[in-house]
Amino acid sequence: MTVAMLVDNVLKASERKLVSDNKQISIEPLPLTCLDPVPSDIAISRAQTPKYVKDVAAELGIHDQELELYGHYKSKVSLDVYDRLKDKRENANYVLVAGITPTPLGEGKSTTTMGLVQALGAHLNIPAIANVRQPSMGPTFGVKGGAAGGGYAQVIPMDEFNMHLTGDIHAIAAANNLLAAAVDARMFHEDTQKDSAFYRRLVPAKKGKRTFTKSMLKRLQKLNINKTNPDDLTEEEIHRFAKVNLDPNSISIKRVVDVNDRFLRQITIGEAPTEKGFIRKSGFDITVASEVMAILALSKDLKDLRERASKIVVGFSRTGDPVTAEDVGCAGAITALLKDAIKPNLMQTLEGTPVFVHAGPFANISIGASSVIADKIALKLAGKPKNSDGVKGFVVTEAGFDFTMGGERFFNIKCRASGLRPDAVVLVATVRALKLHGGAPDVKPGQALPEDYTTENIELVRKGCANLAKQIANAKSYGSPVVVAINQFATDTDAEIQAIKEEAIKAGAHDAIPSNHWAKGGAGSVDLAQGVVRAIEEKPVAGEPLPFLYDLESSVEEKLTTIAQKMYGAAGIELSPLAKEQVTKYEAQGFGKLPICIAKTQYSLSHDPKLKGVPTGFTVPVREVRISAGAGYLYALAAEIMTIPGLPTHAGFMNVEVNEDGEIEGLF
Amino acid sequence: MTVAMLVDNVLKASERKLVSDNKQISIEPLPLTCLDPVPSDIAISRAQTPKYVKDVAAELGIHDQELELYGHYKSKVSLDVYDRLKDKRENANYVLVAGITPTPLGEGKSTTTMGLVQALGAHLNIPAIANVRQPSMGPTFGVKGGAAGGGYAQVIPMDEFNMHLTGDIHAIAAANNLLAAAVDARMFHEDTQKDSAFYRRLVPAKKGKRTFTKSMLKRLQKLNINKTNPDDLTEEEIHRFAKVNLDPNSISIKRVVDVNDRFLRQITIGEAPTEKGFIRKSGFDITVASEVMAILALSKDLKDLRERASKIVVGFSRTGDPVTAEDVGCAGAITALLKDAIKPNLMQTLEGTPVFVHAGPFANISIGASSVIADKIALKLAGKPKNSDGVKGFVVTEAGFDFTMGGERFFNIKCRASGLRPDAVVLVATVRALKLHGGAPDVKPGQALPEDYTTENIELVRKGCANLAKQIANAKSYGSPVVVAINQFATDTDAEIQAIKEEAIKAGAHDAIPSNHWAKGGAGSVDLAQGVVRAIEEKPVAGEPLPFLYDLESSVEEKLTTIAQKMYGAAGIELSPLAKEQVTKYEAQGFGKLPICIAKTQYSLSHDPKLKGVPTGFTVPVREVRISAGAGYLYALAAEIMTIPGLPTHAGFMNVEVNEDGEIEGLF
Repeated sequence: MTVAMLVDNVLKASERKLVSDNKQISIEPLPLTCLDPVPSDIAISRAQTPKYVKDVAAELGIHDQELELYGHYKSKVSLDVYDRLKDKRENANYVLVAGITPTPLGEGKSTTTMGLVQALGAHLNIPAIANVRQPSMGPTFGVKGGAAGGGYAQVIPMDEFNMHLTGDIHAIAAANNLLAAAVDARMFHEDTQKDSAFYRRLVPAKKGKRTFTKSMLKRLQKLNINKTNPDDLTEEEIHRFAKVNLDPNSISIKRVVDVNDRFLRQITIGEAPTEKGFIRKSGFDITVASEVMAILALSKDLKDLRERASKIVVGFSRTGDPVTAEDVGCAGAITALLKDAIKPNLMQTLEGTPVFVHAGPFANISIGASSVIADKIALKLAGKPKNSDGVKGFVVTEAGFDFTMGGERFFNIKCRASGLRPDAVVLVATVRALKLHGGAPDVKPGQALPEDYTTENIELVRKGCANLAKQIANAKSYGSPVVVAINQFATDTDAEIQAIKEEAIKAGAHDAIPSNHWAKGGAGSVDLAQGVVRAIEEKPVAGEPLPFLYDLESSVEEKLTTIAQKMYGAAGIELSPLAKEQVTKYEAQGFGKLPICIAKTQYSLSHDPKLKGVPTGFTVPVREVRISAGAGYLYALAAEIMTIPGLPTHAGFMNVEVNEDGEIEGLF
Repeated sequence: MTVAMLVDNVLKASERKLVSDNKQISIEPLPLTCLDPVPSDIAISRAQTPKYVKDVAAELGIHDQELELYGHYKSKVSLDVYDRLKDKRENANYVLVAGITPTPLGEGKSTTTMGLVQALGAHLNIPAIANVRQPSMGPTFGVKGGAAGGGYAQVIPMDEFNMHLTGDIHAIAAANNLLAAAVDARMFHEDTQKDSAFYRRLVPAKKGKRTFTKSMLKRLQKLNINKTNPDDLTEEEIHRFAKVNLDPNSISIKRVVDVNDRFLRQITIGEAPTEKGFIRKSGFDITVASEVMAILALSKDLKDLRERASKIVVGFSRTGDPVTAEDVGCAGAITALLKDAIKPNLMQTLEGTPVFVHAGPFANISIGASSVIADKIALKLAGKPKNSDGVKGFVVTEAGFDFTMGGERFFNIKCRASGLRPDAVVLVATVRALKLHGGAPDVKPGQALPEDYTTENIELVRKGCANLAKQIANAKSYGSPVVVAINQFATDTDAEIQAIKEEAIKAGAHDAIPSNHWAKGGAGSVDLAQGVVRAIEEKPVAGEPLPFLYDLESSVEEKLTTIAQKMYGAAGIELSPLAKEQVTKYEAQGFGKLPICIAKTQYSLSHDPKLKGVPTGFTVPVREVRISAGAGYLYALAAEIMTIPGLPTHAGFMNVEVNEDGEIEGLF
């Protein structure tokens, strides 16, 4: 930190004034000089001097007591902000960035999100906040690289963004793993003790008095035992209440770790002599795949989170009934462990505009979107004060994977939970992905691109635009105008871009605009930003309410069929015998009215990664249906989904060092 | 937060001035009203309005840029503070709080530490800082309860102290588990690929250029391969360099989790088909038992930490050579993951005096003391400015378990690493523990105390003082004056306390003073604090250098024998055949000159928890000797040591809830 920066900061602090709830926020951008060739992400991040996050917060009108700093460049924002502003400001414009069917190299949704807010906030002087997911550290040290955007469109400081952040993922792991340990310990203690001894220990006397915990009272209620004095229960009631009677073969909760640890995929636990032979097969998921993460993303507040935590189904009893986190007494502790994690994290872009980073459920088996809470707070912060003549600012958020996955879930699961509705969808496409869909050879990470990708080929692009057209139609079906962002590469030709533009507009997009944020920062995204502003002005969201794809009252099979047919273009679905059995059971147990998250490949509109372009006539096989009752959805497996990645021979961690100045090097 | 508090804070902020490096710090205490009966720990913590930690830091003279806030009441302190002050201030007085052989109920070392600094700082107006360990969340939600002290002598806010803190334990788990995953992935990739293919992938070309990482260069150096261009290696060199050739049966690194998860004690990993049959037995430890935690506690700075991380032995090659974290390329990433964890955490006591919370290695198998870095920084902050007539302040820190364990390791391992030396040892005793050693019946957690403990019995107390006398002699052998703190209970009688006093002084203690901090806060510890001040004035540490118990140059067996005979009073030791074999191997590999940490019970001076009082003539069995080359010691197992606790039938987590105001309830 330079002395000039320190002095500057002291000056800023003394100038800082509270932004009135009735006044629009105003962000002072950081100057940015873009180098050519573009340096590494960590070098770009380090070359910029960020603002202190307390100054970013002050610009947003966040009060001191609503802000919890975590070092100088990260902070947590209290949920009180929403309550303070909810009646005083109209929501800002809500923009969803989604993608067409990508190549395995990724088509740049995160960079586009960053470029767009940098353009809006730092170049067009429109209040704009990016809301993104917290990246998992597994891929950070594995093979993928960071998730802070990249090049001149990223969240800074990128090392703090990519490692630990403010500890939310760690808190989720702690909560998930406490629950998992509680489940195994419960089975062990239940099965090694007689009812009376077990009950005496479960509800012990403290200073001579026995009392039920809150969870225990809830369990009694569920069992229709209307008693509050532990000494009043009959033997039969003690048996029903104390023994949740979990079937060890039914346990669905897995432990989690935020590391690409392939050797934990399938394990056998309980092999120490102290566990007396209570051995069972289990496994670890990566932390972001925990249902607790999805709960964090979808909760409205701490009370809602407690309610959702209580509904987590950890397994089934030997009589087939769902056993929840509440039944094993863990919902309160989960809530306590997430008391801080529920507060969104505030950081900034490379150009000093605000970014909320909050939650990051695994896009494979969950919604792949950041939190409802962060969106609601940001929409108020960037919103137009009522009874004033300000403009509506922007909140730009992202849906993981392609639109058939992230986009569909965003509307049908996240928007259903939040009550919010995007004013526009930005669909990110690249010449590269469109060529792949047009018939060019496969691309693979770590291998040189085939020549088709580096030389002009308009025919391949036009042919591939069928995929874009289908994704535009998918996005438009929710009533928001669609702007195609053509994430530009140096090898793209004007004619190729023109072809995409024509095809996109033909397919119903409001516009299709190249964006060069990776190399140019917000300046490279100004055209796109203006296009998004125009789209919202000219095509305000049509019709209320949001036309969800399916009715929650439909059967599980109907919902699955609708998603497959309408979003993927499938002929239909086929449930495996196991899936059929599960669906029947869930519907009987009252879980049938939940929305559904289908886990499939992102590399095809279909379930088969080999089917590029716009496949038709296929049948989506549903192998299994699982339950995330706390998060509030069922998820159906239409593919073998890896829920914890592995480390390759040369992994990212091998390049990471801390230099003499205490700075991290080698992180992408 | 009240409005008055906010206003007060704004005023404080404007009044805040930098404390000159040449001026003594001054702490303004928080007023404290003690209720009778004493409420629960969480209720006491919540009833107090803490200062903002930025104000605590300002009182300590920590500059803004040296402080990283984590919310309002926790912060990290930069290691720059030490560099700034190291030549400008004499170290403060350094006081070690240790204990006699305890009962399973604990005799109150942490509360005594807190009471003592509250008395010094808030009642005697002497600068005083407490340096304590970060508690593991495992016991917090398991059976033990918190580690923030208790009653009116504790760290606040106690819920933030007991959960997550600033994420250091999470960071340690991330580092440890990345290393563990890297080890298994390395074995897998090595054994499934031929040398040439493996080497090509391990050192891939990036933009056409292959380069060795820093770790790789270090490995080449170790192997005496003096080449820096990956393309220059011969086939034989490639084989030696690329394949670390780990023996799967020798892997000593275990994964860790900060949960009392008994079912992870022994597990089988690698059972997914993707791991192609590379199955092996392994297990999890609780995170604080990780060698990485011990490294954090003993490191001087980030460079030292990188160096220690590189020395972690993860297992042995098939030819018997130690394989390190450096060999698998993980030392840099471990350092990066601990970049923030290395900074001590600043909090406060219930009376507003400063507390550093930093590191917390498992007392069973490690040093059970807080960090060297925190001690060094605190000793400067509370120190006497050179060329001034101020007083020396106090830094009070703690050694886990009884003096034969925590105390011995504090002097022979921690002080050896830090170069520091305590000016006094406070030895905590209770009437309860002394009666146990005098022959009273066993006490067990959760059961009512036998009558001997609640009625006066001077004979039992006097008899039990033999244990106290041995521990006094142990402590005195390191040259510091010893003050016995009699941690007072309501049932203690004056005659019993008088008996302890007499016996302690007879045994060589400088004084023995009752302390009632649990019920009265610092006010209850004023006599003790004055006694400690007197002891240091009247008996300054005798002789330089610190008389370590053993010479590092001695053989491992000699070191073990010395510790057992001189500290425990044993006749000798007996190495098992396995231990003998290990010792021979370690000595041959150059690990023989490390200090030694003996893992034994804390419930006896001996290795046998049943032997109370002062057993003699026993032989300490050493089952196994393990290596913590990164932390810098060998550890010998003289008992079966549980390295991950379990959850009982009724566990702490079951009582935890978050109330309507977002506050945690039910946490002890």
